Amino acid sequence: MMGNTVNAGAMQGIVVLDLTRVLAGPYGTMIFADMGADVIKIEQPVTGDDTRLFGPYQNGESVYYITNNRNKKGITLNLKSPKGKEVFKEMVKKADVVVENYRPGTMEKLGLGYDVLKEINPKIIYGSISGFGHYGRYKERPGYDIIAQAMSGLMSTTGWPSTGPTRTGTALGDVLAGLWMAIGVLGALQGRNVTGEGQKVDIALVDSAVSAMGNINMIYLAESRLPERIGNRYEAAYPYDSFDCSDIACVIGAGNNKLWKTLCGLMGREDLAEMDKYRNSPDRTKHYQELKPIVEQWTKTKTAADVVETCLAAGVPAAPIYDVSQVSSDPHIAKDREMFIEQDHPKAGKVIVTGSPLKLSGTPVTMRTVAPSLGQDNVEVFTSLLGMSEQQISELKDAGVI
Amino acid sequence: MMGNTVNAGAMQGIVVLDLTRVLAGPYGTMIFADMGADVIKIEQPVTGDDTRLFGPYQNGESVYYITNNRNKKGITLNLKSPKGKEVFKEMVKKADVVVENYRPGTMEKLGLGYDVLKEINPKIIYGSISGFGHYGRYKERPGYDIIAQAMSGLMSTTGWPSTGPTRTGTALGDVLAGLWMAIGVLGALQGRNVTGEGQKVDIALVDSAVSAMGNINMIYLAESRLPERIGNRYEAAYPYDSFDCSDIACVIGAGNNKLWKTLCGLMGREDLAEMDKYRNSPDRTKHYQELKPIVEQWTKTKTAADVVETCLAAGVPAAPIYDVSQVSSDPHIAKDREMFIEQDHPKAGKVIVTGSPLKLSGTPVTMRTVAPSLGQDNVEVFTSLLGMSEQQISELKDAGVI
Repeated sequence: MMGNTVNAGAMQGIVVLDLTRVLAGPYGTMIFADMGADVIKIEQPVTGDDTRLFGPYQNGESVYYITNNRNKKGITLNLKSPKGKEVFKEMVKKADVVVENYRPGTMEKLGLGYDVLKEINPKIIYGSISGFGHYGRYKERPGYDIIAQAMSGLMSTTGWPSTGPTRTGTALGDVLAGLWMAIGVLGALQGRNVTGEGQKVDIALVDSAVSAMGNINMIYLAESRLPERIGNRYEAAYPYDSFDCSDIACVIGAGNNKLWKTLCGLMGREDLAEMDKYRNSPDRTKHYQELKPIVEQWTKTKTAADVVETCLAAGVPAAPIYDVSQVSSDPHIAKDREMFIEQDHPKAGKVIVTGSPLKLSGTPVTMRTVAPSLGQDNVEVFTSLLGMSEQQISELKDAGVI
Repeated sequence: MMGNTVNAGAMQGIVVLDLTRVLAGPYGTMIFADMGADVIKIEQPVTGDDTRLFGPYQNGESVYYITNNRNKKGITLNLKSPKGKEVFKEMVKKADVVVENYRPGTMEKLGLGYDVLKEINPKIIYGSISGFGHYGRYKERPGYDIIAQAMSGLMSTTGWPSTGPTRTGTALGDVLAGLWMAIGVLGALQGRNVTGEGQKVDIALVDSAVSAMGNINMIYLAESRLPERIGNRYEAAYPYDSFDCSDIACVIGAGNNKLWKTLCGLMGREDLAEMDKYRNSPDRTKHYQELKPIVEQWTKTKTAADVVETCLAAGVPAAPIYDVSQVSSDPHIAKDREMFIEQDHPKAGKVIVTGSPLKLSGTPVTMRTVAPSLGQDNVEVFTSLLGMSEQQISELKDAGVI
């Protein structure tokens, strides 16, 4: 699953100028690259994307950078220099999409805001990601993942009655914003087929996390109840929770009355299925504090693997709670669904990157190239996209523009 | 921000047959509806989408259903009846996209799998969402949100050293799968412009959550360290955490050395900025146990609002940890970014639904209609899409097909 697979992806022929750094932007443009778009990552000469220096590392190379930037071409360009701006504007004429995740106003200060770029190319689609968006009273505020997790209410509903608000253990604000940017840009590409014009897509980390809370928000908006931190159980069904087994915990999702009856049978507790106070889902949810130890009387006699196997054989949804070593070695996830992919990196050696959830029957996602070294594609891109001579490229290099 | 706004959305003219129920599917097709696609939600006669009976409620109506199904048309059709299948196939001839989130194999059993539909309309794009995907050794397993949160490793990294693995307080597996389905279908629409053909988009909840863990996965894949549950702090920077104030907690993200120095100044602790053991980000992360109480010596003397204001004025990223009442009344989020929208529902009355993070300058997202009552658009859709007479529609109704 690597090397120079033929690119016949869904986004073949779409040229994306990728000015993004760190996580939200690179994760989003990775989706375009995986679908075969010609994603040209434009980095500051000499230093490049900050994450080239972030851990985790393999043989001294940042795999943080490597996982989010596969399938992209890498060039350098100093957008602060007049010549760099000029080269960038020439590239915009040939591109379909520009994506950036600078603080709002940065591109305008560079003289490269959407209003300028659309004069150069009215068909350009301009995707931006920022903490609070490009308009609104907080637009100047810095926005990191933790800010979005805090201000969206996500932290307020994650965790346990005994803990304070808890962040999700991955940079979810960044991930969600990257996904929404991809949706907005793809929507704008579709819209361009009708209108003939590009547009600006303005995605905020905070908005993205607020949307993910849609159903939880309704608990307050419709019923004026503040959603609480309820650990691993859910508002509307029980037993639908984690349960301790003889070794580790597993999850069981007996989400309706039929599954409850089946579970009672598995536990040898048909008597429970007859009890009025546990008959319907709202009844069981109300009595979750009684039911959890009852279920655990059974689960604690078996290993988590046994419980899961027994439940699944009877059609009751259940799963082990995996750590990352188990996720990445699970044969369904890693092999069948290709969610872990080996690539060869010239410095890091063999690296494993997380695959794409996009399983497209006609134009499959491909892993064509490993993440670029800084400026590795300068000659190819400036030659093929802008028709520059080697002499011209060499002059740009000498002047520190690339 | 409601009522019958003119629809000139990015997906105008795209016809989506929406067979999805509950959350992941409806959340995904809502994105198409918000962008102006003609999303026709097809429900089982008499009962409809299960979530019509789910809480939370307003005036006895499910706002769970209302928030995820705005902007969609609602029709009924019994896909188990021969006549219902026939009508559906006629609709597929006129549609661009079909989306479903049944257990894998269900559409095939109905005789309406992708292989059948593509014979009827080779340009059709078929989006599916399931727990484990339509191929792979676990494809038959039932997959709920909690299963994806457990098996992706997400729970294993969320929570505190003192708690077990913790789920995120919203149905994140569903939300992520809905977003990836939207990306896949939009990608396939783009691909269809090139190839002239549709394709199948196969999205798994588990894959979607695994992808969100990309950077965390690398900690194990590259360095063989298992990522731990570290509460609200991050692996790579400090102080970047929640801190108790005199009233509630807030978050501060002093993510680099410059911000650390600024924060030291705000705390009146310039001495710390001079100390070698706190000089660089990895040093501070190593000493987080010392630093948290030091920062809290300062934050506990002020309210969270004061701390956030003081930090922001100095350019240090900070935010309050909002609950849903605060999120939904924040003027930037609710008003400026239109993340909470009022709609009029014939039974529920005035409802507030969570808005869309898609801020598109040329073809803005619109809130045109409130979620449909069961079968409300039968006449309009069967007349306009299939050219049926009122007599024919009436016969379908009498036969229990719609």
